[in-house]
Order: sequence, then C-alpha cells, then structure tokens
Amino acid sequence: MSEPIKLAAFCGSLRKASFNRIALNAFAERLPAGTTIETIEIGDWPLYNADIQAQGFPEKIQAAQKTMLDADGLVLVTPEYNYGPSGVLKNAIDWLSRMTPQPFAGKPVALFGAAGGILGTARAQYQLRQILVFLDGRPVNKPEVMIGQAQNRFSADGKLTDDATGKLLADLGASLVLHIRHAKAAAQHVK
Amino acid sequence: MSEPIKLAAFCGSLRKASFNRIALNAFAERLPAGTTIETIEIGDWPLYNADIQAQGFPEKIQAAQKTMLDADGLVLVTPEYNYGPSGVLKNAIDWLSRMTPQPFAGKPVALFGAAGGILGTARAQYQLRQILVFLDGRPVNKPEVMIGQAQNRFSADGKLTDDATGKLLADLGASLVLHIRHAKAAAQHVK
Amino acid sequence: MSEPIKLAAFCGSLRKASFNRIALNAFAERLPAGTTIETIEIGDWPLYNADIQAQGFPEKIQAAQKTMLDADGLVLVTPEYNYGPSGVLKNAIDWLSRMTPQPFAGKPVALFGAAGGILGTARAQYQLRQILVFLDGRPVNKPEVMIGQAQNRFSADGKLTDDATGKLLADLGASLVLHIRHAKAAAQHVK
Amino acid sequence: MSEPIKLAAFCGSLRKASFNRIALNAFAERLPAGTTIETIEIGDWPLYNADIQAQGFPEKIQAAQKTMLDADGLVLVTPEYNYGPSGVLKNAIDWLSRMTPQPFAGKPVALFGAAGGILGTARAQYQLRQILVFLDGRPVNKPEVMIGQAQNRFSADGKLTDDATGKLLADLGASLVLHIRHAKAAAQHVK
Repeated sequence: MSEPIKLAAFCGSLRKASFNRIALNAFAERLPAGTTIETIEIGDWPLYNADIQAQGFPEKIQAAQKTMLDADGLVLVTPEYNYGPSGVLKNAIDWLSRMTPQPFAGKPVALFGAAGGILGTARAQYQLRQILVFLDGRPVNKPEVMIGQAQNRFSADGKLTDDATGKLLADLGASLVLHIRHAKAAAQHVK
Repeated sequence: MSEPIKLAAFCGSLRKASFNRIALNAFAERLPAGTTIETIEIGDWPLYNADIQAQGFPEKIQAAQKTMLDADGLVLVTPEYNYGPSGVLKNAIDWLSRMTPQPFAGKPVALFGAAGGILGTARAQYQLRQILVFLDGRPVNKPEVMIGQAQNRFSADGKLTDDATGKLLADLGASLVLHIRHAKAAAQHVK
Repeated sequence: MSEPIKLAAFCGSLRKASFNRIALNAFAERLPAGTTIETIEIGDWPLYNADIQAQGFPEKIQAAQKTMLDADGLVLVTPEYNYGPSGVLKNAIDWLSRMTPQPFAGKPVALFGAAGGILGTARAQYQLRQILVFLDGRPVNKPEVMIGQAQNRFSADGKLTDDATGKLLADLGASLVLHIRHAKAAAQHVK
Repeated sequence: MSEPIKLAAFCGSLRKASFNRIALNAFAERLPAGTTIETIEIGDWPLYNADIQAQGFPEKIQAAQKTMLDADGLVLVTPEYNYGPSGVLKNAIDWLSRMTPQPFAGKPVALFGAAGGILGTARAQYQLRQILVFLDGRPVNKPEVMIGQAQNRFSADGKLTDDATGKLLADLGASLVLHIRHAKAAAQHVK
C-alpha cells in the first residue's frame, strides 16, 4: 500500500463563481486514491509590505506556511490577467517566499488555469514557472493544462462539463503524485 | 517652447524606506524641464476581485484611472520579488486593466527597478514588458535601468548616491519624454 | 498621396510547403496599397561564428543588412519549435545584430506565425519580443496573430483558406503601416 | 561505491577562444569523481529543414542522439545573443527534438553561460528553461550560474581565473549529479 499523500492548493481568482475554483474542485475530485488536498485561502491577505513583515508575519500566513510544509506537493491554479498570473496569487507567493523555511523549496508543483481566450492561461503559467525557479519548486512538465474557452467547458451551476478537460486534470493529478513518489524515494535512498 | 508633459508613476514596493521609492524620487528630480510627475498610491487597494468590480470600481481606483488618462506617459517602478514584479504592482495593474477606457493603452512607459542582487530587477522588467503587450503600453527600450546592489547606491537617509545610476535615470526620463513628443507629433500629423 | 512604404521580411521555416511561408505570402497580398515587401532568404547562411565574422561578413548577410536599412519596417514570421522561434531565424538575427548600423534599430516590426497546435506560436512570439528589446525594434502590439491549427486553415496547394486569418493578417499589415507613418511623422517633426 | 555517471554537453558558441567553451572545460574539471562528460559538436550541422529531415537525419545528428540517450544528464552552455540562447544552440535543439526517442525527455539538465555584461546570460537561460518544458528536460534550479563580466574572469590563454566562478561551477556539477542519483533511485524504486 502506498503512503497517503497531502497536497496544498492555491486559487488565484477570488470571485465566487470562478472557473479556476471550479477547475480546482474538478482536479481534487480526480486525484488518485489516498491523496488529500487542502486549499489555502488568500483573498484576505494584506498586500505585501516589508514593514508589516518586520512586525511579524500575520497569523493566517503562518498557518499557510505550516500547511505547505506539511504537504507533499503544491497546486497553483491561476487565471491569466494581463498575460501574467493574478496579482492576488503573486501577492501570496511574495509573502510566503519570505518565510523560513521557505515553503515552496523542493516541492513538486502542478500548475493549471482556465481562461476565456484560446490560450488558456499559457502566458501566466510560463511566468509562474520562472517564479518557481527562484523558489526552487519542482513544476511538473506534462501534461500542461491550459483550459481555454472556459465558458464552453463549465455549466451555469459550477460543474466541469468537458470530458477532455476532466481527463487532462486527472492526468495532471496522477503525474503530480508520481513526481511526489519519485521525490520521496529519492530522498530515502540517496543521501 | 515645448508643451508641458505630465507623467503618472507607480511604485511596486510599499515599505517606507524602499530603494525603489527613492529611485523614483531620483528619477523625478532628473526629468527634463517642463515635465511633472504624480505618483499613484496603490498600497491600500483591495485585492482584485471581479465580484467587487461588479459593484463598481472603488473610488481611489477611479481616481487613478483619471490621473493616468490625463498623463502623457507612465512610469512603472518595481522591485523584483521571486523573479517577477511585485504582487502589489500586479494587483494595481489587474484593477486598472478592467476599466474603460483602459488607461495604459497607447501610452509610452518607462520601466525601472532596484534590487539587492546583481540583476537589478531584470527578470521582473521582462515580465512587465510581456504584460504591457496585452495592455498596449509602449515601453521605452533604451536605456534599460536595472539598479543592482542597491544597498551600495543609496545612503542611509534615503538619497541616491551613485552618479552612474543618476545618469541612467536622467537618460531614461529624457528618452520617455522624447517618445511622448514623438507620439504627440504622430497623432497630430497622421490620421 | 502617401509616400510608398517598403518592408523587409524573414521566414523562420525552410521547408518548401511551409505554412509560415504561405502565411507570409497571404500577408503580402493583403498589404495596404503603396506597400512593397521583399523577403530575405536565410536558409543558406552559415551558423553564427565570431571567427568567421572577424574575416568579414558574408556577402549575402551584407546584402540583407542593406535591404533592411532601406526598408521602413520589418516582418518576422516564425514557426514555434520547442516553445521558441526557430534556430534558423535566431541565427539570422544573431548575424544581423552584429552589423553597423544594426539594422533592426528603431524599425517598426510585425510578428506572426503558424503552428499545428492551439497556441499558434504564442510562446515563440513572446521570446522574439524580448529579443527585440535588445535590438531596439518596435514591435506592433495589436493585433497579435497566432495562427493555430494551421492544417485547417491552408489548402493542399498552398493557399490560405481561412477568412478570419486573412482578416487578421490584413489588420496587422495596416497596423504596421500606420506605425511606420507615425514613426516617419515623429522623425520629421521632433528633433 | 557509486555507479559512474555520464554527461553529454553542448556549447552554443563556435568561436575558438569562446569564454563559454572555457567555462565548459572548467565545469568538466570540477565534476565529482566518477563522472565523465562528452561534448557534442554542433558547429557543422545544417540549418533545420523539415525537407532534409524527411530524407533522414544526418549521421552526425543521429550520433548526437545516441550520445544523449546513453548519458545520465545533459549540460547546456550558451552565450547570450540578443537576450536569448544562440541560434547555433537552438538549431541543434530543433533537430534533436524531432528524433525518436526524443533525447532530452526526462533528463536532468545543468545550464550555464558567460557574457561580457552584468547579467551573465540570465535572459538566455530563462528562455532555455521555457524550451526545456516542451522537451521535458529537468533543469537544476540551484545554483544558477550566470558568469557576467567574463573578460575579467578568464586569462588570455584560456583559463578560468576567478575562484568564485570555479566554486559555482563545481557546485552546479555536484547538484546535477545529485539530481541524477535521485532520478535513478526514483526510477528503481517507484514503478
């Protein structure tokens, strides 16, 4: 039997009916057995300010760090605003990157996103991949999940209705879990 | 006599003693005669949320749009956090990009930033340049101003002490103003 | 009457039946009246080597520079290979960028490309835009022309069959010409 | 005793006295014991052309693929030309990416480069990292080795003279070898 796996997730869109939030739910439902996922809410974090940090990290950010450190892998879901990840998600990353231990370091990461246009958040994801170099995250390369024309893939009541997208999300979840198992085996057998 | 020129500026760092804020002041002091600059404060804006937008843009964001539309050119100053522009600045851009008229469209833009490392915000600036493609901003190509090892170029009491950096900032200001004059002449003579 | 406008173009794909070559032809056919375009062939250039350069630029590269300097604007058409522009096109740029005068400097540039996948060379185009910052080219922002699923938009005998793509190429040509007229007016009226 | 490790390397600069070639030699000299490295020469490859490919891959490119498939990890050394990797290197990648099996897939990769300017090939390296997403290469995140002001770090007779750079190259070699050992352990223990 495989050891259980824990994931921590972020959603870069704050609107209630967000396609990205729905896609994250659909991803969660399709994870391999034995995998749990917890979403870290970032919508009420302050804008990053080093002067605030100097007085101590806000409690909710400390809690987020703890959740990340306990997790085996991370999930970053972002809309594409202005060809980049949302400022909301970037702001959360900017806070978390300042903490010790830095909670992205060495973690396998799955990226995806949904957008109205054809490109399906591609540009935002490549910017995130560059950000993850600094953070020493380990993003999964394949499959890349760029959910374009999102309005055609989700129902009015907030369900994913497109099977191809569901399959891609399931494949990405399986790929992330495999990367995590690889990383665990590597850490155990190579010192 | 040349017509006066108005600039609107953003600073992506919120800490009081920010090197980027000092660099923006140094840029302002070195602008060609007849140029004025107003900094738009973004530190108390909410995180972007389409549900808030649906109830109307917050007043301070409406005021920012107006300042930008009245300006002849824009100045984006950003620290580099995690190889990208700050979430703070990106959040402001995400709000402003939703407004009609979209206030970046067609505007000449100067970019610069200061950082502790060698690269001096280079990576953040290239991400911003990609963002500006969507926004149809017109970033100045030369000179690129990447203020590395910022701790050696500013004094403890918040002054720029490095002449080479001062010269670069002056050159960038002159280049931005020239781009603006070009854009004005083009708009006047080509219909 | 407007002054005639001359363009110089590059195609980053060398295969005879290249979709990108067909797209370049379709672009040329849809240019505004009074605009001529010359394609610079780069398929037999040597790989860039500074030791060869030290003995003098090959004649065909000198001729290319001259064509570019005589042109009012440039057109870069590239397939996307491995998420970037083709090495073929980059090699040509690497040679030309070493020449004096550097023939990209200050020139308006139109970018486009065709690919089998959904993204239609988007990633290659953003890498090219970064390259153009160094070269001080002035890429047109809008419209961005990313011809995805190219196999559905061209006929077996090498014609563009998709009207929407034809319209986009016409719009890009018109936008490039307008940028060129703006640049000429600016150069004439602002010293 | 650890199993021996084999690396395959590419150098994107063709000039004889290339700083990048010297840096590659310095990297090779500092590899952990038990590691061998073979450089694949790409200076006489044709420009990529799918019509040539259709007649069969040139023999030297087939040989390169074989060397890569036999290797446990890859090393990409590139100058920065026009803010990207050299067209020379990209051309080699464009050929190799078409082969079956695709020889970058799943391989740990070390990236570095040397340049005259301050940024030390940073921009080229981030473009390469994006290219490696498509190729499913696994670039090492840390340390990033960007050898700026190369003219001050190498002697006239082609030796690396800067100890800090030598240390960075040694650290990168050790990091690459550790990634390779991790990947081997993972492949052995997780099916």
